[in-house]
Amino acid sequence: MTRRRQIYEGKAKILYEGPEPGTIIQYFKDDATAFNAQKKGTINGKGVINNRISEYVFTRLAHIGIPTHFIRRLNMREQLVRQVEIVPIEVIVRNVAAGSICKRLGLEEGQPLPHTLIEYCYKDDDLGDPLIAEEHIACFGWASQEEMQDISSMAIRINDFMSGLFAGIGIRLIDFKLEFGRLYDGDFSRIILADEISPDGCRLWDLATNEKLDKDRFRRDLGGEVEAYQEVARRLGLLQENAENEVLDFDSHRKKRGK
Amino acid sequence: MTRRRQIYEGKAKILYEGPEPGTIIQYFKDDATAFNAQKKGTINGKGVINNRISEYVFTRLAHIGIPTHFIRRLNMREQLVRQVEIVPIEVIVRNVAAGSICKRLGLEEGQPLPHTLIEYCYKDDDLGDPLIAEEHIACFGWASQEEMQDISSMAIRINDFMSGLFAGIGIRLIDFKLEFGRLYDGDFSRIILADEISPDGCRLWDLATNEKLDKDRFRRDLGGEVEAYQEVARRLGLLQENAENEVLDFDSHRKKRGK
Ligand SMILES: Nc1ncnc2c1ncn2[C@@H]1O[C@H](COP(=O)(O)OP(=O)(O)OP(=O)(O)O)[C@@H](O)[C@H]1O
Ligand SMILES: Nc1ncnc2c1ncn2[C@@H]1O[C@H](COP(=O)(O)OP(=O)(O)OP(=O)(O)O)[C@@H](O)[C@H]1O
Ligand SMILES: [Mg+2]
Ligand SMILES: [Mg+2]
Repeated sequence: MTRRRQIYEGKAKILYEGPEPGTIIQYFKDDATAFNAQKKGTINGKGVINNRISEYVFTRLAHIGIPTHFIRRLNMREQLVRQVEIVPIEVIVRNVAAGSICKRLGLEEGQPLPHTLIEYCYKDDDLGDPLIAEEHIACFGWASQEEMQDISSMAIRINDFMSGLFAGIGIRLIDFKLEFGRLYDGDFSRIILADEISPDGCRLWDLATNEKLDKDRFRRDLGGEVEAYQEVARRLGLLQENAENEVLDFDSHRKKRGK
Repeated sequence: MTRRRQIYEGKAKILYEGPEPGTIIQYFKDDATAFNAQKKGTINGKGVINNRISEYVFTRLAHIGIPTHFIRRLNMREQLVRQVEIVPIEVIVRNVAAGSICKRLGLEEGQPLPHTLIEYCYKDDDLGDPLIAEEHIACFGWASQEEMQDISSMAIRINDFMSGLFAGIGIRLIDFKLEFGRLYDGDFSRIILADEISPDGCRLWDLATNEKLDKDRFRRDLGGEVEAYQEVARRLGLLQENAENEVLDFDSHRKKRGK
């Protein structure tokens, strides 16, 4: 267990070599960052919840035919996934104006967009993940046109599915971020959904009250981050009423045993 | 002459009502601004030269079939153009990395781009003309898909033509900005090239020495702005060896008479 090789430590997850070639393990941390890691903190139990939510959403997406990296959850904080070559593009799907786009284009937060908008950012922390257009992607060869076709059509399907999923539990899907990767089979590769889908990378507002149930609670110092993440998991049916504490206990228990 | 109505005063030009409906007069000022008008100054005689260069380039572009707003030059600082509804998009065509893209994407100035890159910015000074993608243009209805098709194909043709034009006079066309507008005919409209093409909105480097012959001399306090603009006009055959002073004299003479 301790002998496995760490591949990468990111802001929210650690990647370890998986048990078989072509697989990796995503370990979900409680670390939270915002504004390109200028703000740092911890959200207690976030890793456990995000691991669970991401498992749930990826499994559901596979059922509607979206190819994903997800294989299976291993334990409270870890999931086994297929290793891919990450396409260096963050795909942001927006239904309602919120966050960076408001300042950038002078929009009011909460204003529904005329229609769903897909934005692409170049995945480069040093540059602050700058907004790009398909022209940049083509110019620098970050993805082929066929890949962008797959990515954009999957992003739209994922948005439709997730909008429905969350609407059904009284949550408005404002926007979310996706990452895709290339799964190689010899010289050939195809695009599959990678990374995670969780309140870390989504904006989720309560349909009735507009209360934020996502990382904006952390970004904007609103407090109640843990409760918000738990609430999303609970509405998705992932935490039974009084199993919540159990879940988190299990985790601290595991920690006590020493990793 | 003094009774004609001013329609708009911009950073580099003033627009007056034209003699016939559907026409306007562009008056070219010597005012120069940079970094979204945070830096302001004057380049003596710039208006005269830009009026002349823009006339020349627009006329040449019409000859290869690019529809433009240009009708005729009226005098040293003024040209008559067709009034259009400006598409609120700045179209930037880049052959070599320079200026804002270098910082944004971590490129070295002077590095040729893998291939010609078209960037779009939303024309809004208050927002600092933010970069946008075709998705934003479609989402907010700033231009139709057909219009964007016309704009991008014209931009590519203009780049090819201008690259040749400048190569022929020992100048490398690094990048340039275009504006397009809608020319209405009843309920119908078509896209034509508008605004100006001059060293104000182009990066022009001497092919042999890489010397900058454009507004970057002003932006970066390199000095010799007037000489650089004159050099471009001279190489284009627009200023005869010893007619340069005459041109500028004519202008100051006109000023002395009181407007
Ligand atoms: N299936 C996969 N195969 C390989 N890498 C993956 C896979 N899924 C996700 N990744 C990458 O693993 C990392 C996950 O770590 P984390 O989310 O903490 O990164 P991060 O700090 O957010 O940095 P980044 O800006 O790269 O996302 C990301 O770089 C992500 O792109
Ligand atoms: N044929 C035309 N009909 C109507 N407006 C035009 C035409 N050609 C150019 N314009 C507009 O006239 C103005 C020219 O003024 P100037 O170039 O000084 O503006 P500016 O300060 O650069 O502001 P802007 O950011 O709008 O370009 C611009 O707003 C331009 O879009
Ligand atoms: Mg990440
Ligand atoms: Mg202008």
